[in-house]
Amino acid sequence: MSRPFDPGYLAEPFLTLCANYPEADVYPADQFRIEWGPIFHRGRLDGSARVLVIGQDPAQHETIVRRILVGEAGRRIQGLLAKIGVTRSYVFVNAYLYSVYGSVKAKTRKDPRLIDYRNRWFDALLVGSQVEAVVALGQAADEAWRLWKASSAAQSAAVAYAAVTHPTQPESSSKGEKVKLAAATKKLLQNWNTALQALSPSVQHPDVATPLAFYGDKWADGDRVAIPESDFPAGLPAWMHEQDGWAKRAGADDLAKRRNITLTVPTGIVT
Amino acid sequence: MSRPFDPGYLAEPFLTLCANYPEADVYPADQFRIEWGPIFHRGRLDGSARVLVIGQDPAQHETIVRRILVGEAGRRIQGLLAKIGVTRSYVFVNAYLYSVYGSVKAKTRKDPRLIDYRNRWFDALLVGSQVEAVVALGQAADEAWRLWKASSAAQSAAVAYAAVTHPTQPESSSKGEKVKLAAATKKLLQNWNTALQALSPSVQHPDVATPLAFYGDKWADGDRVAIPESDFPAGLPAWMHEQDGWAKRAGADDLAKRRNITLTVPTGIVT
Repeated sequence: MSRPFDPGYLAEPFLTLCANYPEADVYPADQFRIEWGPIFHRGRLDGSARVLVIGQDPAQHETIVRRILVGEAGRRIQGLLAKIGVTRSYVFVNAYLYSVYGSVKAKTRKDPRLIDYRNRWFDALLVGSQVEAVVALGQAADEAWRLWKASSAAQSAAVAYAAVTHPTQPESSSKGEKVKLAAATKKLLQNWNTALQALSPSVQHPDVATPLAFYGDKWADGDRVAIPESDFPAGLPAWMHEQDGWAKRAGADDLAKRRNITLTVPTGIVT
Repeated sequence: MSRPFDPGYLAEPFLTLCANYPEADVYPADQFRIEWGPIFHRGRLDGSARVLVIGQDPAQHETIVRRILVGEAGRRIQGLLAKIGVTRSYVFVNAYLYSVYGSVKAKTRKDPRLIDYRNRWFDALLVGSQVEAVVALGQAADEAWRLWKASSAAQSAAVAYAAVTHPTQPESSSKGEKVKLAAATKKLLQNWNTALQALSPSVQHPDVATPLAFYGDKWADGDRVAIPESDFPAGLPAWMHEQDGWAKRAGADDLAKRRNITLTVPTGIVT
């Protein structure tokens, strides 16, 4: 059986971007889990991307896989992309290289070194590229986009843009309350429908010609789409891309928890 | 600060080898931890390798880093290579793609599918290559070498060869007994000195011209050499290559333990 994989960072400017990145002086350890290292991207770096998705920051599954948006949020975004026919020609980067710990101070967010480095990724992915649309997930991503748009390199870029509600905002805002979750999900899907209308006319080269179908009031079959195996590094087991919840932060106190990631192979794999 | 990394599998035949590898039908789940996926190599795949090291199988740190021989055994081998002046121009592959669980049955070891796949790696690394010497760590590695040497592709290859005691054999054979450990270490270092004599004349193109200095009766300063950051994938934190013991298999019973890897950032990194 063939197991396609993502070869990663094999050409410039990505080789340089992945060898020279901001560390603790730019991403302070009281605001970011810098101890786990930066996680850079997911998707196409070979110029074939038609859509750029900007996420927020990586979590624990991303830390192990070393690719971003590989869990539930990722599957929801794959679904959004599929609705505009983009099944492969996408690339994802985050507003932040490291996982947010607590909250990010304004001074950090506005640090020119943080912004300049991120803008070099945007330059690499957007200037003179085939990208036709950009989607920002949540506020930090939207701010990242606007800061890049204000840069001189961005002036020639003409792409459709939609800032959307972060894919797991319903869960994080409702904290387990079912009624709240349903209402927040409905609101998110309406927000995403608006984005589909804005983005769809601009995506002129989808991977698969797809008639536009809007979301309903809740997640329906097919709205969440599996993350392709070919987005993951070589040799990772299938459960790492097919399943969720296999990486947790555990510990008796905040420090122990911060220092820990516990991996558990899902039930039914080892028998 | 620049953080050089290993770009991984970016050209043939390695792209194909890392997308099409033996799975559970060849590596039975009762003998291998196939649930964590295969781990392929460490070092140079660009034709610059002068020494090929054959290891046995990956353990838990290797499973996270997705490169082989990244712990204590790796540091000891880096030291052996340094004694023949090879600081960068090496490549490591294992006899087995997956971590051994219990022991490997003869039928599995002799499975032509297992051998053929491994031989394709040896072909890629040895036929018409610059490799001048091969080092096998332990019995499984020695057997892997001999099985390749008997293949038709191997007939034109003329390289020096040494089968040596596995670098952590003293620890595994002495089980915490200090006197036994010291004796086993002395024996290993004598064995490695013999290997140095066999290999040294054949390594004609070291990275650094180095007068041959033999091991003493115990590990001395400089005998263990740090694994270069440039052997690891992009973005991994420094503690993952500088330290050991940060990945453990934990659990209340054998199954729980098999399904688990617990990562702990070493003391002093998060404060």
